[in-house]
Amino acid sequence: MAAPSVSVLITGANRGLGLEMVKQIVEAPRPMKKLFACCRDPDGPRAEALQTLAKKHPDIISVVRLDDLCSIKQCAQHVGSLVGTGGLNLLINNAGILFRKTLQETSPEEMQKTFNTNVIGPMSILQEFLPHLRSAAKACGTPGMSTSKAAVVNISSTLASMQRIQQTYEIIPAVSYRISKAALNMLTMCAVEELRKDEILFSLLHPGWVRTEMGGEDGEIDVQESVLGMCDVMASLTEKQNGAFLDYKGNPIPW
Amino acid sequence: MAAPSVSVLITGANRGLGLEMVKQIVEAPRPMKKLFACCRDPDGPRAEALQTLAKKHPDIISVVRLDDLCSIKQCAQHVGSLVGTGGLNLLINNAGILFRKTLQETSPEEMQKTFNTNVIGPMSILQEFLPHLRSAAKACGTPGMSTSKAAVVNISSTLASMQRIQQTYEIIPAVSYRISKAALNMLTMCAVEELRKDEILFSLLHPGWVRTEMGGEDGEIDVQESVLGMCDVMASLTEKQNGAFLDYKGNPIPW
Repeated sequence: MAAPSVSVLITGANRGLGLEMVKQIVEAPRPMKKLFACCRDPDGPRAEALQTLAKKHPDIISVVRLDDLCSIKQCAQHVGSLVGTGGLNLLINNAGILFRKTLQETSPEEMQKTFNTNVIGPMSILQEFLPHLRSAAKACGTPGMSTSKAAVVNISSTLASMQRIQQTYEIIPAVSYRISKAALNMLTMCAVEELRKDEILFSLLHPGWVRTEMGGEDGEIDVQESVLGMCDVMASLTEKQNGAFLDYKGNPIPW
Repeated sequence: MAAPSVSVLITGANRGLGLEMVKQIVEAPRPMKKLFACCRDPDGPRAEALQTLAKKHPDIISVVRLDDLCSIKQCAQHVGSLVGTGGLNLLINNAGILFRKTLQETSPEEMQKTFNTNVIGPMSILQEFLPHLRSAAKACGTPGMSTSKAAVVNISSTLASMQRIQQTYEIIPAVSYRISKAALNMLTMCAVEELRKDEILFSLLHPGWVRTEMGGEDGEIDVQESVLGMCDVMASLTEKQNGAFLDYKGNPIPW
């Protein structure tokens, strides 16, 4: 029996890791039903590369606006109408922002903005897309968990690791970002507990220190290597990795 | 040589754990210079018990309004004028709010409100009081770290432990609270790294599951037991416990 085709949604898909994920996933041999590539402003200049890519795969890639809560609700409705009872198999919360500031430099406004984008965003998206993830889990028919059944992958960071902070803090403080990713880790663990019975898999991935707009020129790896690794890790996830915090090579990261 | 008198500030001091801390600290044999008992509305009905206690120790307890960023700045100025070059020895961030909601029930507004009070509050307070903590560290004259020299104790919770979530989630989900306390843990670890050279000690304490307004009637211990334990733990802290996450008995909690 051929593997069933899957539907995937990626946030922050217009650049960096998100754009590369769209590329690699759509070009992979895995059968793809729909790939929802979400970004804040699909018609703006920062989404041109994504729109060009989408034109090459018009039956698969759908570029969707995802910004405030209202657009999240609209997007969930739109996705639901396209995936139907097959549901959404994989939701990748990749969108995120980072301020390179120390604790003493960080303002309350930067804290709020980072928390809104990096934590409340993924929470609202999960809440609104939960019916479609549940549909996918039900439609699958086989027991267990996987990213081709029903899963949420939240892009976190080794900077969220309390145990590794002594090694990482001097390189990049990014306090509001660290705090938001530790918060995202906890959000994910709450989802693991609350939605285990629904057979939806949750995982936290650290993309590595990547040469993107966010990671800067000093990054250790390029986007291709990071996304290749993360796609391999995602494909390998089972219920044994539910709630796992892994890097792009599949190595566990301590809390 | 007699132990030097110390200055302490406690937030959320009008009820529950905060009020009990003020009581036990002011009645302890340890010489006390000033105890700043902070709350949102010192003149309101919810601060009556604190005001009554303050009247018994008029030379020591000072009830101060602490709410928004503006009041934090005013409070820091007021405290600075009273402690002078001796500085502030111990800052206890105890104020916090909790919504008893699951992930599916939690609203973006509850997330923001909890994050503002439980995370941005302690961050702003630390930023504004940092000069007074540095003064205290300098005035001390002896090496090492302690809560009678210069320290910040952030009241966290075992609910912030990712490793313990499977045991605690069913009892009380409180998702926005868990997220905020995991965020507070990261904030504290950032402070540990950034301010180690200033010889300011940081610690995270879990008060236990206490029968307070927040903890509810089913709590396992009363406020007296919790605060007795936390005061003992605080008195025992040295540079070896810098960045430690401990319960009220002094037992380490895993991240």
